[in-house]
Amino acid sequence: MKRMEFFFNYGSTYSYLTIMRIEKLAAQAEVSVHWRPFNVRTLFVEQNNIPFRDKPVKAAYMWRDIERRAAKFGIEWGGIPPYPVDKSGLSNRIGIVASDEGWAGEYTRAAYRAWFLEHKDFGEPEVALAALQSIGKDPKLVIARADSDEIHQKFAAQTGEARSLGIFGVPTFVIGKEIFWGDDRLEDALEWAQKSAEQTEV
Amino acid sequence: MKRMEFFFNYGSTYSYLTIMRIEKLAAQAEVSVHWRPFNVRTLFVEQNNIPFRDKPVKAAYMWRDIERRAAKFGIEWGGIPPYPVDKSGLSNRIGIVASDEGWAGEYTRAAYRAWFLEHKDFGEPEVALAALQSIGKDPKLVIARADSDEIHQKFAAQTGEARSLGIFGVPTFVIGKEIFWGDDRLEDALEWAQKSAEQTEV
Repeated sequence: MKRMEFFFNYGSTYSYLTIMRIEKLAAQAEVSVHWRPFNVRTLFVEQNNIPFRDKPVKAAYMWRDIERRAAKFGIEWGGIPPYPVDKSGLSNRIGIVASDEGWAGEYTRAAYRAWFLEHKDFGEPEVALAALQSIGKDPKLVIARADSDEIHQKFAAQTGEARSLGIFGVPTFVIGKEIFWGDDRLEDALEWAQKSAEQTEV
Repeated sequence: MKRMEFFFNYGSTYSYLTIMRIEKLAAQAEVSVHWRPFNVRTLFVEQNNIPFRDKPVKAAYMWRDIERRAAKFGIEWGGIPPYPVDKSGLSNRIGIVASDEGWAGEYTRAAYRAWFLEHKDFGEPEVALAALQSIGKDPKLVIARADSDEIHQKFAAQTGEARSLGIFGVPTFVIGKEIFWGDDRLEDALEWAQKSAEQTEV
């Protein structure tokens, strides 16, 4: 099976479209996806590349574009959600735990549904807790691990790795050294992964 | 036939992909395309939204992405061209003349081939002149009109119209009040134009 890394950040708006699509499309393409949450805000500041926060015209378009793309893909849309979210980084760290333990897709869809459909901030402990409960995980155990030094360090390490790869935004799909930015490159990335010879894994 | 406005700027990198595709795709979709060059740099500054000039990591990705997308679409790629180009605005103003006279597609493809394949700046008079000659136009007549007050004013007016529509980048496709940004939204925009009832023109 071919391998693709999925670098993203809990708080990325366009990633909603990706999160609701990636597991199905990757399965069809027979590509394994490795979820890699990292601190994209650190790179935004370093690179003087703030995508929406200080750009109201572009931000207004972004919401409309996500709404239209969601309709195209048959993904639910609940109106414009709060933004930004996960300032605490809690859901990003839970995502690292989830990726490590093999349930990142389930958690991330639950968390993004809370954000996009119920308009809750999954950086708030009670929202993350409810999302964990909804997928049958023990919130206390998971949140304790998400708050551990090990996971804080892994979040920082994945941010460093993203920087080294030339990543500047999310979602970004990585096959070897080749990077594809944006939900609208998901199909291109999967096709690239399928054609890549050297990335084969057992 | 349905109608779509194509707001763009001579100097936009991703627009290379659009310019080489739009007339064929629009003809297949039975949508008429109206070329609207405007001064996107004015909006970049107003909106604090500089896409690439001060962002080397993102700019490096952009060239690689265009190269890959060109390969996907069967469009020639000649390596990374000079950037930025058309600081004088000459080709933007020629584009307004061309749009008015009905040969924007021909001129723009010739100009972009000079930029992307021969690595020449079509803001330089001799490059614009050669592009005009290659499509059988009288360069002196066209350039005189491109330098007229009428065309300078139309360039400014189209910039104002772009601002009013909530445009922040190029290429942008407009159907009524609905805007689609990016070469990767060309197909979505054409589909939207096809489905739009009220935009029908005779």
